[in-house]
Amino acid sequence: MSKEKNNFSVTPRSQDFNEWYNDVVIKADLADDSPVRGAMVVKPYGWALWENVQKVLDAEFKATNHEALAFPMFIPMSFLAKEAQHVEGFAPELAVVTHAGGHLLEEPLVVRPTSETIIGHMWSKWVRSYRDLPLLHYQWGSVVRWELRPRKFLRTTEFYWHEGHTAHASSEEAVEETLKLLEIYKNFARNYAAMPVISGVKTPSERFAGAVDTYSIEAMMGDGKALQAGTSHYLGQNFAKAFEVNFQAKDQSQQFAHTTSWAISTRIIGGIIMTHGDDKGLVLPPMLAPFQVVIVPIFKSDNQDLMLAEARKLALELRALGVRVKVDERDGVSNGFKYNDWEMRGVPFRLELGPRDLEAGNVVLVSRLSGEKAIVARGEAVAGMTAQLEGFQAELLARATTFRDERIKTADTWDEFTRLLEQGFFVRAFHCGDADSEKQIKELTKASTRCIPLTGEVYGDLEEGVCIHTGKPSAYGKRVIFARAY
Amino acid sequence: MSKEKNNFSVTPRSQDFNEWYNDVVIKADLADDSPVRGAMVVKPYGWALWENVQKVLDAEFKATNHEALAFPMFIPMSFLAKEAQHVEGFAPELAVVTHAGGHLLEEPLVVRPTSETIIGHMWSKWVRSYRDLPLLHYQWGSVVRWELRPRKFLRTTEFYWHEGHTAHASSEEAVEETLKLLEIYKNFARNYAAMPVISGVKTPSERFAGAVDTYSIEAMMGDGKALQAGTSHYLGQNFAKAFEVNFQAKDQSQQFAHTTSWAISTRIIGGIIMTHGDDKGLVLPPMLAPFQVVIVPIFKSDNQDLMLAEARKLALELRALGVRVKVDERDGVSNGFKYNDWEMRGVPFRLELGPRDLEAGNVVLVSRLSGEKAIVARGEAVAGMTAQLEGFQAELLARATTFRDERIKTADTWDEFTRLLEQGFFVRAFHCGDADSEKQIKELTKASTRCIPLTGEVYGDLEEGVCIHTGKPSAYGKRVIFARAY
Repeated sequence: MSKEKNNFSVTPRSQDFNEWYNDVVIKADLADDSPVRGAMVVKPYGWALWENVQKVLDAEFKATNHEALAFPMFIPMSFLAKEAQHVEGFAPELAVVTHAGGHLLEEPLVVRPTSETIIGHMWSKWVRSYRDLPLLHYQWGSVVRWELRPRKFLRTTEFYWHEGHTAHASSEEAVEETLKLLEIYKNFARNYAAMPVISGVKTPSERFAGAVDTYSIEAMMGDGKALQAGTSHYLGQNFAKAFEVNFQAKDQSQQFAHTTSWAISTRIIGGIIMTHGDDKGLVLPPMLAPFQVVIVPIFKSDNQDLMLAEARKLALELRALGVRVKVDERDGVSNGFKYNDWEMRGVPFRLELGPRDLEAGNVVLVSRLSGEKAIVARGEAVAGMTAQLEGFQAELLARATTFRDERIKTADTWDEFTRLLEQGFFVRAFHCGDADSEKQIKELTKASTRCIPLTGEVYGDLEEGVCIHTGKPSAYGKRVIFARAY
Repeated sequence: MSKEKNNFSVTPRSQDFNEWYNDVVIKADLADDSPVRGAMVVKPYGWALWENVQKVLDAEFKATNHEALAFPMFIPMSFLAKEAQHVEGFAPELAVVTHAGGHLLEEPLVVRPTSETIIGHMWSKWVRSYRDLPLLHYQWGSVVRWELRPRKFLRTTEFYWHEGHTAHASSEEAVEETLKLLEIYKNFARNYAAMPVISGVKTPSERFAGAVDTYSIEAMMGDGKALQAGTSHYLGQNFAKAFEVNFQAKDQSQQFAHTTSWAISTRIIGGIIMTHGDDKGLVLPPMLAPFQVVIVPIFKSDNQDLMLAEARKLALELRALGVRVKVDERDGVSNGFKYNDWEMRGVPFRLELGPRDLEAGNVVLVSRLSGEKAIVARGEAVAGMTAQLEGFQAELLARATTFRDERIKTADTWDEFTRLLEQGFFVRAFHCGDADSEKQIKELTKASTRCIPLTGEVYGDLEEGVCIHTGKPSAYGKRVIFARAY
C-alpha cells in the first residue's frame, strides 16, 4: 500500500509555523513543487477548494453586472513602460519571451504580471463616448511574477487569480466601484473563508504601482503575522492617460476615463490554511470545503457490500439537502488511516457508520473542531447537518475574531511599539505619513504599515496624535495598523 | 450615439465565406484582435459562450470521476525533447522565455503548447503502485502555439481549452478512456453545439505528435470544409517511458503506465459560427447561447418606466423556468437597431413587447431561424418557451445533419475524387494507408484524410476496395473521409 506509508504527523504549529505550513500543504495534498522554480502544481484537492472560491466570487461579480472576458497572456514589452510607476514596480519580476515560432521576436513579450496595460490599450479602441462607459470587466487566469523566495500559495512565480478592471466616466463612480469591490472581498473573506479581515486603505508607499489609492483586506494569520488577502485599486486617470482611454462626455468635451483594478488570488488558500489549521492539519470553512462531510463506512470483507451501500444511501440523503459529501470507499487502508487523512484535509464533519450503528439506526458524528465523537440517530444526523455546518462556520469565524482581537494592541511609545511587534502583535499607532520613516520602521522592526482601517470599520476610529517614530503630528486622522507580514 | 454607428451588414456568406466569418466574429462582438500578433481578445459575449461550453463539459468530466487541477504554464525546454516525435511536432510553434527576474535563465522555459511532458514528470513522482492508478486529470487554461496564419477562434497563438490527461495500469483501460472521451465530445457537439460531427480515428500521418492513436470529431462547416472539433489521444506508453511513469503492478512487476490526453478548445466557437451562421450573423444553439431570449420593450419617453417594468416582469417569469433572458433596456437606440443587433448575436428568440401588446395581453415572438413574427398570448409565450427552445435546438441539428449528408459523397475514381473535392464535398474513398500517398493527395487536392469513422458510427461501414490514388488494396477495412480543412 503506497498510500498507507503516508505519515500524518506535521511539525507542531507552535514549534515552527513555517514548517507546519509547508507540511500541511503537502500532507493535505493541496499542492506540490513543480520542476519550474517557484511555480507550484495545484493538486485536485487544492484546486477543488479554489474552484469553490471562484464559484462564489464569480457569482458576486456577475450579480454586480461585471462581465467576464479574456485578454492575452502576452504583453508587448513597450506597454509596461507607458506608466512610469507601473514599470518601476514590475520590471524586476518579469518573465520575458524573446523567441517564438523559431525566430527572435522584434519586440520581446512579457508574460502578464497584471493586465492594466494591455487592457488599457484595448479599451482605447472600444471607448468613444460616455455611453460606452462604464466597462466592468474581469478575467480568471494566471499571471507571472518572478519570486526570489517562493512559498506555495503565498508567493509563487505563477499564481491564479481573477483580475477585475473597470473604466468609468467620473472619479466618483470609479472610487465607488473600488470600495464596492473591497466590500465584496471583505464579505467573502468573512462569510465564506471565515477570515475576520480588516478593510482599509494603504499608506502611499504600500500602494500598487500606478494606483492613486490602494485598498486592501488584511488578515491575521495563526502566528500573528499579516496577510494581504485582497486588493482594490483606484487608478485615477493614470492608465487612461498612458493608453489614451478617452471619451466624449455629455457636454461634448474630451475626457480621460477613471479606472480601477482589483484581485484576489490563490494566496487566499494560504490564508485559509494559516487562519484555521492546527496540529492535525487543515481545518476548512464549510462554505468553501470541497467536502463538508466525509462518511467512513466500517466494514470487513463479509459485510463490505452492505456497508458501502448504506454509506452511499446516507450520502444521497445528505446530498439531497445540498451537502457536499465524500464516501471513503477505500479498501485495504485502516479506519484510523482514513480518519487521520480526512482530519489532515480539514473536512468539517466525519460520519462513521459501522454494522452496530446501522443496526441501532445510529451514526457516529465527529467534528473536526472538537474531535469529540457523538452517537446520533441517523435521521437526526441528516436533518441536523445543515445547522451543524452553519455552527461550524460561525465557530471558525468567532474563534478567529477572538484571536485577532486579542492580538491587536495600541502603542503610544516607541518601546511599547517595538516590544509588541516583537511579540507578534498587530500594533495600532500614529504615524506622520512620511515614507522615509515608514522605510526606517520596516528596517528596525520588520513591520510594515498594513492599512488605515476604513471609518466605520473595526479599529477605524478617528483619532489624532503623535507619530510613534518621528514625534511629528499624525497623518490620516487615524491610527495605522503595523505588523510583520507575509 | 457611438453604438448606432455600427453597421450590421456582413459580407454575404455565399460571396466570401472567410470574409463573412471575420465580419460575424467582429460584429457579433465575440472577439477582437490584440496587439500581440495572432492572439485575440475574447470579448464578454464570446466568453459567455465559452463559459457555457465549459460548464457543460466540466460537469461531464466530474460526473465521470475526472479531477481538475493546475500544472504550471512554463515547461523546461529539455522536457519537450524527451519524447522524440513530440518535440519534432511542436518545436516550430514554441514561445520561449529566456529571461526572468532580470536575469538570463540557465535553461529556457517553453510556454506550454500542451502539457503531456510536465504532467508526465509530475506523475512519475506521484505514481508508485497500481493502487495509485488511474489518474484522471484535467485542467482549464490557455496554451500557446505560434501560428503563421492566425484566424480568430480557429487558429490563435494563444487559445483556451481544457486538456485532459489520464494514466492507467493497462492499455485496455487507457483505450477505453480515450473512446469514452471521444463519446463525450461527440455527444457534446451534437446535443449542445448542434454539430453533427463524425467520430473516427486519424490516419497515422494525422496523429498527434507522440500518440499511438488519435481519435477526433470532425465537423462540416457551412462552406463544406472540415473542422477538427475535438481530439482524444491514446498515447500508449510513449510518454510514460519518456518520463518514467512506472508502477509496481499487482504481480509485483514494474510496469510503465498507459496514458491518454484529450482536448476541446475555443476552436469549437469557430465551429458553431461556421455551422449555423447566416447572412444576418450568428445563430446560436439554445443549449449554449448566453441569452436564449431577448426581450425588447417598445417605449417612448412617456411610457418608458411602465414598459421597462413589464419587460422585467416577463423576464422574471421566463427565468423562473430556467430560461436565460436579456432585457434590452437601452435608450436612444432604435428598435430596428436592437433587432439587428440581437439577430447579429444569434439569440434564438426575440420577444417584442409594446404598449398595444401589453394591453391585449400579447407579445410578438420572433424566431432567429425563420425570422417570422407571431403574435402570441403572453402566458403562452412564457409557458411554451422551453418547448420552443428545444424545437429550435432540434431544428439546428436536423438542418446541419441534412446539409452534411448532402455534401458527403463516395468516389471510386481519381477523377470523381478530385472533382468532388474541388466542389467542396467531403469524399469517402479507399486509401492504401501509405503516408507518402496521403502527402501527394494533399499537394494535388488540398484535401487531407479527416478520419476513418468508427464502426457503428455513420459512414463507418466495413468495406474493402482499391486505393483512390495508388490502386493498391485499401487499408483500414473502411473508406476514409477526405476533405479540405480548417
